[in-house]
Amino acid sequence: MKIRVEIKYLPNVEDPEALSIKRNLSMLGYSGIDDVKTYKIYEFTTSINEEDSMRQIQDISENILTNPVIQEYKIEKISD
Amino acid sequence: MKIRVEIKYLPNVEDPEALSIKRNLSMLGYSGIDDVKTYKIYEFTTSINEEDSMRQIQDISENILTNPVIQEYKIEKISD
Repeated sequence: MKIRVEIKYLPNVEDPEALSIKRNLSMLGYSGIDDVKTYKIYEFTTSINEEDSMRQIQDISENILTNPVIQEYKIEKISD
Repeated sequence: MKIRVEIKYLPNVEDPEALSIKRNLSMLGYSGIDDVKTYKIYEFTTSINEEDSMRQIQDISENILTNPVIQEYKIEKISD
């Protein structure tokens, strides 16, 4: 099955990459861009049953992919 | 309006981050994970009209955010 993990910065945490993109875009002459956000997506394809897959991806998201102090994650089943 | 740009590696191009995650997950004892893919998402909030917004984001995606040799991008309007 396919499972997507979307990782983003917590609302009150500065996103350094987004800030620098926003600043550079205005220097490059792009106008009317009020905000930039960045997300990271990890898409896993597994060959074990759904319960084990979701439990493992939850564990991986929490302990490996995400820094809970500054990030949050969302897990989404994409396909069987 | 809100516009999302999703950037991923071209099908025949190796995703170094995904490869190292896959390798490390199996060393850490996670099983049944056959494939890992990574995507990057940039979400822009603009205050100009739709046509100018889409034209600018197309230009930004093509010339700044994406390396056309190894990556492809998809632009999606999220909200007005």
